[in-house]
Amino acid sequence: MDKSFESFVTQVETGINAFIPGDQPPELYEPIKYILSLGGKRLRPLLVLMSYGLFKGDSKQIIKPAISVEVFHNFTLMHDDIMDKAPLRRGYTTVHKRWNENIAILSGDVMLIKAYDLLMKAPVKYLQPTLKRFGVTAAEVCEGQQMDMNFEHRKDVTIKEYLEMIRLKTAVLIGYSLELGALLAGENPETCQKLRQAGTNIGMGFQLMDDLLDVYADKNKFGKQVGGDILANKKTYLLIKALKTATGDSKASLLDWLKKKEYDPGEKISAITSIYDNLNIRDITNTAILSYYRKGTEILQHMDVDPSIKKTLLAFIDRLLKREK
Amino acid sequence: MDKSFESFVTQVETGINAFIPGDQPPELYEPIKYILSLGGKRLRPLLVLMSYGLFKGDSKQIIKPAISVEVFHNFTLMHDDIMDKAPLRRGYTTVHKRWNENIAILSGDVMLIKAYDLLMKAPVKYLQPTLKRFGVTAAEVCEGQQMDMNFEHRKDVTIKEYLEMIRLKTAVLIGYSLELGALLAGENPETCQKLRQAGTNIGMGFQLMDDLLDVYADKNKFGKQVGGDILANKKTYLLIKALKTATGDSKASLLDWLKKKEYDPGEKISAITSIYDNLNIRDITNTAILSYYRKGTEILQHMDVDPSIKKTLLAFIDRLLKREK
Repeated sequence: MDKSFESFVTQVETGINAFIPGDQPPELYEPIKYILSLGGKRLRPLLVLMSYGLFKGDSKQIIKPAISVEVFHNFTLMHDDIMDKAPLRRGYTTVHKRWNENIAILSGDVMLIKAYDLLMKAPVKYLQPTLKRFGVTAAEVCEGQQMDMNFEHRKDVTIKEYLEMIRLKTAVLIGYSLELGALLAGENPETCQKLRQAGTNIGMGFQLMDDLLDVYADKNKFGKQVGGDILANKKTYLLIKALKTATGDSKASLLDWLKKKEYDPGEKISAITSIYDNLNIRDITNTAILSYYRKGTEILQHMDVDPSIKKTLLAFIDRLLKREK
Repeated sequence: MDKSFESFVTQVETGINAFIPGDQPPELYEPIKYILSLGGKRLRPLLVLMSYGLFKGDSKQIIKPAISVEVFHNFTLMHDDIMDKAPLRRGYTTVHKRWNENIAILSGDVMLIKAYDLLMKAPVKYLQPTLKRFGVTAAEVCEGQQMDMNFEHRKDVTIKEYLEMIRLKTAVLIGYSLELGALLAGENPETCQKLRQAGTNIGMGFQLMDDLLDVYADKNKFGKQVGGDILANKKTYLLIKALKTATGDSKASLLDWLKKKEYDPGEKISAITSIYDNLNIRDITNTAILSYYRKGTEILQHMDVDPSIKKTLLAFIDRLLKREK
């Protein structure tokens, strides 16, 4: 990792540590400090800072709007965890389990308000487009979460619908992160849009990689249980693709495993993984990931911007593509 | 009611009807349309329009920011109803009962985002102070709701704490509504602050009137069950005042009723009401309401603004004070 990347990481961590959401009543603000302390890749604010760095050098000035996307992202996690009844987040107890559901609802609400407060620290002359694009993106993230919940009750989800769901739920916010850097640097709408498109493609690849790692990660390197999505019958890219391409015994076996109420978890994971193996699902998914990453990085490569920061950004995206957790 | 008040009402209704929060997926947007269709006094956007009218004549231009406070208010109702497990809102099934809790959480989140979208339609030159003051107010409303939930588990809530809770939960948004009209008219910070103070005092009186009507409303005119707060042992101004002033048998009887697990609802309501009567709680509450209304209206009376709209606004506040539901 190069020196300038490390300086962006330091800026993000310093910015998050300096962020004081509020104080009283403690039930409202402690969960916000808690969820932000659980770490994570800080992918989104890093993208904002690097994107801004493509055009301007003084990224410390935009640290508050940059961390607003991380605060927004963690707000969505806090509310999603209630909806998914998730007990753990990044290996720690979720807010609604550690406190209760009402506190997780209300703390999340305040977190969304605080994300806007941080975004409002954008330079006044760029405030309106910055907020307008944020509003569109934030609503899309909610639409994606609603689609994801709707998919739980459906058996006929298509690859096209799935890709639209992850575009909304995950990719558009990564797109907005790259776009935000350009918005804050005062770049023209065309440049901002290019960065958004690059980020959205990278976000698609990022989510497909998440689906893939759930099945094929090295359990010693992966932070959570390998096969969690398989046990939950979660409609991932891998499962939808397998359901579409499987035939004969392979299809019957897959459907059988999805229906089973009682089973040995390890047995289910290895059975479905071997169906995926036989159908080449790993390669098919990797091909899709590569295609999205290429689309995203090509846009960046063709841009006339600071070459050193561009290199840092492309190297970061490359590491995301090769990540093991 | 005068003609100009009716024109404000028409503008608000037209603005709310013209507001399209979104479309797909329907599970996300139908609840927003539903809760906004249930009516209500539309108090907050009416205050925004009248406050703006004190300074400028073209209130149609600010209809979107004006209805943003109504959208925000209804977002808080949607989430509060989940937290309070309320089955009914304005006599209709609540969103989390008609759909489910997850949909009520997520629809509420989108509603908050849409409230910001509407507020962003403020004139660009006034955008930053408008959003900044909104962020402060919105967080305060959540703090008030958290305090209210905390009070449920406490027996020693003081009048001072109760007044601080309703200031945050209810009064500051009514204060912001009057302030917003002045912000959108480009008035100076001093004028904006005066209107906020006027609105906050009126909001305090408004909430105390709510507490009073729950016990003393004419059941034929009141929209919901008279005595609902009494049956729920809700810590209202009336109950806290009664607990503080009651002595001897009266205090013992009040505490006894609060502890009882099984009782005839009508009997409990009439027993506690007659304790309130003996302690003069109705007069004490009415005195407090009048004092807040006077503080609020005096600020308005001393302002050098359009006399005709001022008259309309003061008449509206006067009707709020004398309301029967």
